[in-house]
Order: sequence, then C-alpha cells, then structure tokens
Amino acid sequence: MPPVEHDRLANALRALAMDAVEEAKSGHPGLPMGAADIATVLFSRFLKFDAAEPRWPDRDRFVLSAGHGSMLIYALLHLTGNAEMTLDELKRFRQLGSKTPGHPENFVTAGIETTTGPLGQGIANAVGMALAERMLNAEFGDDLVDHYTYVLASDGDLMEGVSQEAIALAGHLKLGRLIVLFDDNGISIDGPLSLADSVDQLKRFEAAGWRAVRVDGHDPEAIAGAIAEARKADRPTLIACRTTIGFGAPKKAGTSKAHGEPLGAEELAGAKAALGWPHGPFEVPEDIRAAWAAIGKRNRGLREAWERRLAAAPADRAAEFARRHAGLRPAGLGEAMARLKERLAAEAPTVATRKASEMALEVITEAVPELVLGSADLTPSNNTRTKNLKAIAPGDFTGRYIHYGIREHGMAAAMNGLSLHGGYVPAGGTFLVFTDYARPSMRLAALMGAQAIYVMTHDSIGLGEDGPTHQPVEHLAALRAIPNMRVFRPADAVETAECWQLALERKDGPTVLALTRQNLPTVRREAGARNRCAVGAYELSPANSEAMASIFASGSEVEIALAAQALLKERGVPARVVSVPSLELFLEQPDDLRSAVIGKAPIKVAVEAAVRFGWDAVIGEEGLFVGMTGFGASAPYKDLYTYFGITAEAVADKVLARHNA
Amino acid sequence: MPPVEHDRLANALRALAMDAVEEAKSGHPGLPMGAADIATVLFSRFLKFDAAEPRWPDRDRFVLSAGHGSMLIYALLHLTGNAEMTLDELKRFRQLGSKTPGHPENFVTAGIETTTGPLGQGIANAVGMALAERMLNAEFGDDLVDHYTYVLASDGDLMEGVSQEAIALAGHLKLGRLIVLFDDNGISIDGPLSLADSVDQLKRFEAAGWRAVRVDGHDPEAIAGAIAEARKADRPTLIACRTTIGFGAPKKAGTSKAHGEPLGAEELAGAKAALGWPHGPFEVPEDIRAAWAAIGKRNRGLREAWERRLAAAPADRAAEFARRHAGLRPAGLGEAMARLKERLAAEAPTVATRKASEMALEVITEAVPELVLGSADLTPSNNTRTKNLKAIAPGDFTGRYIHYGIREHGMAAAMNGLSLHGGYVPAGGTFLVFTDYARPSMRLAALMGAQAIYVMTHDSIGLGEDGPTHQPVEHLAALRAIPNMRVFRPADAVETAECWQLALERKDGPTVLALTRQNLPTVRREAGARNRCAVGAYELSPANSEAMASIFASGSEVEIALAAQALLKERGVPARVVSVPSLELFLEQPDDLRSAVIGKAPIKVAVEAAVRFGWDAVIGEEGLFVGMTGFGASAPYKDLYTYFGITAEAVADKVLARHNA
Repeated sequence: MPPVEHDRLANALRALAMDAVEEAKSGHPGLPMGAADIATVLFSRFLKFDAAEPRWPDRDRFVLSAGHGSMLIYALLHLTGNAEMTLDELKRFRQLGSKTPGHPENFVTAGIETTTGPLGQGIANAVGMALAERMLNAEFGDDLVDHYTYVLASDGDLMEGVSQEAIALAGHLKLGRLIVLFDDNGISIDGPLSLADSVDQLKRFEAAGWRAVRVDGHDPEAIAGAIAEARKADRPTLIACRTTIGFGAPKKAGTSKAHGEPLGAEELAGAKAALGWPHGPFEVPEDIRAAWAAIGKRNRGLREAWERRLAAAPADRAAEFARRHAGLRPAGLGEAMARLKERLAAEAPTVATRKASEMALEVITEAVPELVLGSADLTPSNNTRTKNLKAIAPGDFTGRYIHYGIREHGMAAAMNGLSLHGGYVPAGGTFLVFTDYARPSMRLAALMGAQAIYVMTHDSIGLGEDGPTHQPVEHLAALRAIPNMRVFRPADAVETAECWQLALERKDGPTVLALTRQNLPTVRREAGARNRCAVGAYELSPANSEAMASIFASGSEVEIALAAQALLKERGVPARVVSVPSLELFLEQPDDLRSAVIGKAPIKVAVEAAVRFGWDAVIGEEGLFVGMTGFGASAPYKDLYTYFGITAEAVADKVLARHNA
Repeated sequence: MPPVEHDRLANALRALAMDAVEEAKSGHPGLPMGAADIATVLFSRFLKFDAAEPRWPDRDRFVLSAGHGSMLIYALLHLTGNAEMTLDELKRFRQLGSKTPGHPENFVTAGIETTTGPLGQGIANAVGMALAERMLNAEFGDDLVDHYTYVLASDGDLMEGVSQEAIALAGHLKLGRLIVLFDDNGISIDGPLSLADSVDQLKRFEAAGWRAVRVDGHDPEAIAGAIAEARKADRPTLIACRTTIGFGAPKKAGTSKAHGEPLGAEELAGAKAALGWPHGPFEVPEDIRAAWAAIGKRNRGLREAWERRLAAAPADRAAEFARRHAGLRPAGLGEAMARLKERLAAEAPTVATRKASEMALEVITEAVPELVLGSADLTPSNNTRTKNLKAIAPGDFTGRYIHYGIREHGMAAAMNGLSLHGGYVPAGGTFLVFTDYARPSMRLAALMGAQAIYVMTHDSIGLGEDGPTHQPVEHLAALRAIPNMRVFRPADAVETAECWQLALERKDGPTVLALTRQNLPTVRREAGARNRCAVGAYELSPANSEAMASIFASGSEVEIALAAQALLKERGVPARVVSVPSLELFLEQPDDLRSAVIGKAPIKVAVEAAVRFGWDAVIGEEGLFVGMTGFGASAPYKDLYTYFGITAEAVADKVLARHNA
C-alpha cells in the first residue's frame, strides 16, 4: 500500500476523532490523532476480523487499553463497516444512549472487546484473552482457534501497577500471541512524562521475559515490520511506537493540551490544514470510505473458511465449541450438584467452607470442563486446586490451573480477559481482605456483566493469628455495595455447594464466595430439591412457637445464631434463625418473599463477624447487631470471637435485654 | 566482627523465631531464618538507631515489608533492648493483647515503623519515608535530618503491582537514601517461584533507575559491602540477597514448607543442631545477649550529639522541628480558616467543590508548611496545586508538590510513608472512583491511624461524559464502611473549607474529601463560629412550620434538596433540609444529638447520587431514597441527573406520594 494511501486512511481516523470530540464539547483527541498510524497499520494489514461478524470466535482481539482514546476505535468500527456504528453514532459521541460512550464499553458496543478507561486494565485483560486463546487452541486445535491479541497501551497503562503483574505473568507464560503497541508519546495530563517518570520501558519488559523494540510510530513500514516480527515470536512483544500526541494539531500537538479536551475551532481547522484534510465535519471522501470498507471485509474469506472447518468438525467437538462460546453450562451439572448436596447433608461434615468449596470443586471440575481455577499464590490456603487439575506452565497450555503469583489485581484482570474471550469461566482465589487489591478489576467485571468467580477464603476474624491486616471487617459491605456484584457467604458444606452452583449458573456478572478458614458444622441437614441460597436468605430453623426474635446470620455466624436460639429457648424466648448467604440478593427479592423471610417477630438481630454497614436494610435502624465495630486483632480465633463478643451468649443477652425492656 | 560472632548473633534471631512460632503453633519461621544474616549485618553495622529511643526523629528507618516474617523484627527489638519487647512478649507471639501480633503493627509496638503484611505496602511506604527524609533535610539541614531508609522485601512484595509504582517513583526522584534488601529465596507459598514468575528483578530495578546488585545473602561480608556501596549512591539501590528460606532446617529449608507454619518439634531440633545452637526454647547465651545489647546502644553517642545539635539550634527552628514532629498544626490555622469561611459565605461563589478546595488550599498552604500536596497525574482536574507550590524534582527536594504519576496505589502508600515518617501531612488527589486502586493503602492508613488526606474529585455521575468507568456510585459506601476512615462530601465552598480544616486537625486517621467536578451554589450563607461539619450533619434549612419531611443530602445533592424543599413548600408540605457532609461521623455522635438532627418529621428522604447502601441507618429501612441503583452512564451531567431521576421534582414527588398515602 503506498504511503499516501496510508496517510489518508489514518487522517480519516484523526478527522473523525477531532470532529466528534468537538461536537461533544468533551473527549480526548490526542490519542486518536497520535495513534492513528499505528491503528491503520494494524487494521489494514494484520488484524484478523470481519466487520460483519464482530463476534466471530477466531477473530484477533484488539484491546484499546488507553480507553480515553475511544474515538479511535469508534472511528475504526464505523469506517470498517460495523453495522451498529453509524455516522450518527459518531455525532452522538458521549451522549445519553449512544453507542459511543466516553470510554469504550463492550456491553454497549459490538466490536469492543472489553471496557477500558481505568488505566492498566486493558493490557491486563489482554493477558487473559491471550491465555484463553492458547488454552482453547490446546483443547480445540489450530483449525478452530488460532488468533492474536493486540493491545494499544498508553504511558498511563504502563505506569499503573497492575501492568507489572500482567506483563510478568504474560512473560512467564510465554504468551507469544500477545502484542502490545505502546503509544509512546511522552506526555501525561500533568505535562511531560518526565515530570513523574523515567522508566526504561523496553528494558522493563525485557526483564519480564518479553521481546521489546522501538519504532517511529508515524512510520507505517516500521510499525508493520515490527508487528510482522512480533507475530513470529514465542514470547510476547512490546512495540514502543514513538508518537506525537495530537499529531497534526499546529499548537497543541506534543503537549498535554492535546490530551483531554476539544481542540477548539481554530486549532481543529489548523490541524486539518496541516494534515491535508480539506473536508468538513464528519466528511470522509468516498475513496477513503471504500478503502476502509474493504479493510473491514479483508478477512471475510478467512472467516468463511473457518466456518466451513467448524461445520466439518466432528459433531461433538463442534457442539462443545458452541456450548462453551455460548456460555452454557453442561447439562449434567445440576444433577451432579444435587447428588453432592444429598451426600453432604447426610454425612454432615464439620469442615471449613474453604474445604467444602474444595469438596464441591472435586465434583464441579469433572462436570464443567470450562472452569479454569487458580490462586494468587495461596493455593494450599484457598483450596482451589483439586486433584484432577493440571497447571498451566510456560508454553504449555494444556492445564486448567493457573498459578497467578502474588498478583491479586493482575489475576482479577486476567480473569476478566479469560471470561470476555469466551470459552472459559475463570475462578481465582486469595484471602477476602485482598479483594481490596483486586477491586478495580472486580468492579469492571460487575460493570461489564462478566462471569468471574472469586474464591475468597479467610473471610473474617475467624482466620485468627494473622491479625487485622489480614482480617476483613468491611469487605463484605464494600463488595455488596458494588452494583451487580453477587456476594455469597455460605454457612456450611451444603450451602457452599449451592453457592458454587449459583456462581456457575450466573452468566451476567461476577460472584464472590466468602469462605472460612475455620471449621464449621453442617447446619443444613436436608439438601432439598430447591437451591435455598438462590433467594439470598431463608428460614433455616423455625421457632418452637410464635417467634419473639428473628436471628439473621451469614457464614460462620449461623452456628452462633443456632446456639443463641437454643439458649433463648431455654430462657423461654422462642426465636427463629434465618440464614443469609447473600444479603444483597435477598434485598432484590419481591416484597412478599422478603417480608415472609424477615418475619413478624418483634426483635430482630443480625450476627456477622463484620461491620453492621448494610444490615439496617434487613433489621431496621432499631435492630440489634452482633458483629465488629472496628478492626480485628491477632490471636487464636476462638479468643477473638470471645474478645469481640460475637458469641451465642452475647446474642441471647441482647435479645433478652430488648425482650425485657 | 569475626564471622563466628556474626553467625551466633544471626542464629539467636533464628532460634527465637523458631521457638516463638512453635510456641504460638502459628506463624512464619522461614523468612526470619532465611534473612537473619541480612538483618544481623544491617543492625550490627549500619542501622542508626538507639533502642532506648525508638522514636528518635533522625533514626534510620527499617521497614520489614515482608511482614509475615514479624518474628525477625520482634527478635531484633528484644535482643537490642527495646524496653517493651520483653522475652515474655516473644512467648506471647500472636496472642491477644501482646506486643507481638502476627504481622508487625506500628500502633502496637514501639520500634515498628509501619504496619506490614499485605505485600508490597512496606516497600511503597518506604519510598514515602525516604522522600520525607530528603524533604525535611532540605528544610532543616544535615544537622537535624540525615538518615537512611532500609527495606527488607520478599518476592511477594516485588510481585505486587504497587511495587512497580513505588520503585518507578523512587528511581525517578533519585532517592539515594533508600536501600532495599531483597530476600531472594526463590520460594513462594505455592512452591518454587518458578511456578509463577521469571522476572529478572535486577534488570527491572535498573530499568526504573535504580542500582541493582546481587550477593550471597548468607555471606555477611558480601552483604556489608553491598550496603556500604549503596549508601554512597545518588540513586536507590536494590540488593538482591540470595537466601535459603528456613535456613538451617534439615528437611524444610529451601521449600515452601518452611514458609508459614511451625517447623514441628523434630525439625526444630534438627535445625538447632544444624545451626550449632544447643539451647532450649527462648534461651540465648549471655555473651550473645550482651553483644546484641551493645548493638542496641551502638549509636547512643550519635543520638546524644544530635540532641545537642537540636538544643543548640535557633529557638524558632528547633520549635518548628518539634511542632512538626509532634503533629501539631500551626496556631494560625484556625483563624485563617475562620476568615476564609467568612469571606466565602459573604461572596457565595458558584464553584465546583474541587475549585472550592483549591480556594481553601490557597489559604492552607500558606498557613500549614507541613502540608505536602500532589496528584496521580490529575493536577489540573483535582485542583491540588496552588500557585505557591513548587514541585519536587529528581534530586531536588525543596518543593512541596509531588507529581506521583499515574500511580494511585503507589501515591497512597507513599503518603502513608510521608505521614509515618513524621514532619509532614500528605494530601494526594485522584478521581473518587480510583480510590479502588488506592484502597489497600487507604485501609492501612485507617488501621494505623495515619493522617493522610485524599482529595477525591469527580465524585459522582456529576462528572458527566467520562461515563460509568469513571463515575463512582458505590465508593462513598465502600469508604464509609472502613473503620476509622473519615469521608467528607461538602456541599459548597463553606463546607469545603470546614472539611479541609477537620482533615488537617484530625491526627488519628485518614480523611477522604469527595469533591465535585460540576459547579455548585453556596448553600451556607452564614459562616458561623462553629465548624458545623464537625458533627457530620446539621440542619441547614429549617421548615417554615412543623416539618412533615426531613430531607437529608450530601455534597452536590444538597442543592437539589433545597430546591425540593421549595417545591414542597409550594405544595403545602413543610420540609427541612439536613446537610450530611459525613454520614459515618454523624452516626458516631451521641444519641441526643443524632436524634435532634434526624428530627421527628414523619417522612425521611435521603438524596445522594450514589447507592443507598448505609443510608438506612439514618432514614430507616422504610425511608425514601433518591439516588443510584446501578452504574452510571456517559452523557452531559445534567442529562444524567434527569435520566437517573435525581432531581428536586423526584424528591418532592416521592415525599408527596408518601404524604398522601
């Protein structure tokens, strides 16, 4: 392709980005203008995609980690012929209900692979995508799975700590199908990058096991050469592309002024003049439109050939591929879980719920081949690795267990990528307190509606001696507060099995399983046909006569609630116990169900080894609460329960005091 | 010092660690045993400290970033003569109320510089400490401030992403007084480090502008040589010390079995035999005790000379140094803030509270020289840099403004270090939504009771077009849930000034200031003598007659509450408006104050552009709420308020519907 053609293609991206930001009076022109050459080379010569089928499973993934440059990808989708990305959508950039929100949102816009904007997330998601590709390839072969993952990342992406976790994991695993194009423009919001950074990024990536090269990001042949080389490597590659932010803008190019605001009419006109782009707002000449449209169809033959291969594949293999990509769970799961529940209810083991989780996983990992487990270096504590699971190793992607390393954030971000890629359900473990480290990625999973399962053990002061740095007290509340995040805290082995099943069957968002370190008795002695955790709360133990008190509890405190019920019975106060495995799921239930479970007993008390925050919605602001009011402490866990007054006696005493008041 | 003596000193640390973990039946022997040689060299030959005065301001700081190895520092404190760290405390390792909790807690144990355990935090805190040292040195000179910051870090510390943010900042700023000793034992909990990592750490640190060397971590002369060289450098240094985890344990040394559980009687006996340590549990021969005690007194002369220099310093300089280290604010602050409030109430500017914060800072930065501001690359958005503030630059520490880079987590962790070092109050800015990135360090500030101020702008859907990735909806709740975290969301310029003053005067913990991007009117038209934000909530606008409704609101929604009050008045329903700048501070107030502010109006409604979570404690579970129920969207902010129904009309309609029910 002659350079002039390249320039005109790239300038179309620049012009649309400038125009849309100007029209919106808001947005980020600098990145699209600076990275337009990179994107043009990638899309016109390398990226395997078919604009007519943005969900083709074997497409290359393109992740715009620098999500603020959203107009770049919107312009690309528009020009290559994405059906939803009309010119009108570009004109409605950043307006309510458009397909063109301020940052790319995969759940709004077809062709967007992941939701970016919070920096560092995209590059870390891409590690999960590239890993999913290799794992699926190991399962389904080159015929069906054979693609690359490309990332366009900014300085900000690389400054965020999560990027280190991501690149270390990718380098270690030798994810050669991962290629990061670094928009190396030397500018951040505060001014020149040199105000805050002097990292040698090439050397840093090499230290993490990557190939790393530097090119002129406005030289299409140099970019193309680097990508071609990168595609041959058995390691991931960083291509640092030296660019000028706001390329073409006469006064603002190369400065932080180009980053995050409209250029203004005069500067915009100057930029168009400098770029040799004499066209009005949103105008793109027909020949350029045609060239971009051809790029959008460039791989149609490849896609059709792929579809023929899928059609020709053995029926069971094709069906499994389709099931996995549709996000359907295997038919046998429900029955296997029902059998497990029956067995657990009958055997009534006294085990930690982390152990109960492992027992559930022994069944689940057999029934659900798409479940990919892992841990942020707490495998023996999280009980996430069952006997049948082989670990992924550098260059060997035949396993289903991932040693994520001490990288909770990178793990959660990679899990998002595994989930978004299609084909897998990721589940990863750490201690509940360290959800703080993973939180930015967990929030994005909730926002995107991505299925991911967080196996969060050591869920309270019940972890004991490790002390307050390791004891969550506010984390249940903080996670429950995230919209679309499901938090389960099962009380025993039976509830743990139920919660695992709900997490697996939930396709529209992430689930936290909060599990104990310490042993708990089995409190559910009947499995039952229904999944009782599915409505968030249920009466576990009725009162012996009309209840004077309702005791609500979750997880390890259900045992305490039952003991309190027994104490109150001795003292002539009938009480009922409601197990609340998911407070926020319960609050979403219809009024009549909620009212029935909350009941009419005049005294309401909640017991949870955590802060009260959020419980008032169940027990009312006059309700009693037995739990934590501050941070925990270091001691054997039974001493802590006594010290913090989370005991059956404390519950009974509070109820009696209210009863006698 | 002859090697044999070194070995016996180091073995005393190993033996005490093994014995204490065994006694506790819980803990981590592997790191103390592996790193005992490093610690012995550092404490016996380099570390400037006086065990009799663990708070001597000019001491070297030693940060055990690998906090799970807490018995190492407890053994060091005990043997060097820390008065609180008796042998009995070692025997009570990990027991309730001891000075020896599972992980080091600076607020429990004198001589512990920061609270560690969550990995990566210590090394990032140390960056703040090393920066504080240079900044204080620039202010007070070599006579008073001239010390080093040493860190002992593990693989886990370096795998956490926050370490990248920290080392990039330290390398950029050329913090030559920072020396990291890396306990390079090649083992993590899941097994050999090679399961999950293959980063070349030396190369990575060099890429961040550090010196980096590798030594045998069991060769005291090699360690000493490397430290001596590091102390001369104008850049920070990483000394990777190759060690054997659980050094001396016959079967478990060099394996993950040595990491996190007692050795067991047999292995412990074998380790003592291998180390040539024939002594019983907790026994240390007198000559070794005497040698360690001498190390604890080694720098007494230096300390006394320092005290003489302080006594000889000009009175105002000495007084300022003392004030700063006592954490007292300047006497003039209250008066300056009172004048500011008067002016703002009179002028009644319509400004965003982020702008109001800048207006407050113009006064505060003049009045409070110890306030160190900064931003994670959002300076023009956070409005954190006032005209009089010079920025810190590499090797030049005369400024008071820090360009932290796009490193929210590293910023918050460094702020902890600045605060813990003494001499400074750090305040750092980013968008409220990105508190998720900084949360692990913010939690530790709350746990430690460290003063730090988070200037969190763009605090709701009111930020508009950037969309749901940037719009906090659950963050106010998630932050309020953290014990000892103060969250303020001021409604106007007057409240912003009051909240800033409270944040500055609060010495026992961190404060979040949640500030708007969008303009707000001044709703407080009388400054008043009292700081009305100090009790968390107050009646801003009474009803015209006996109130039928109380409208509670925070921040930008107070304007909406007042408009709703006016609408209701038109419709004959008297309502009052309560401004709630700090929900959780209000809930901590005495019952009578709380009841008086909540009032007796039969209808209670809260308005906040965030999730309801937590508000039930004020309005009751039957209370009305106008706010968010899910994530936001990308659009101009006024469109979003309308779309999500957070309007005066919606508030009035809800109240009227309840009133007429």
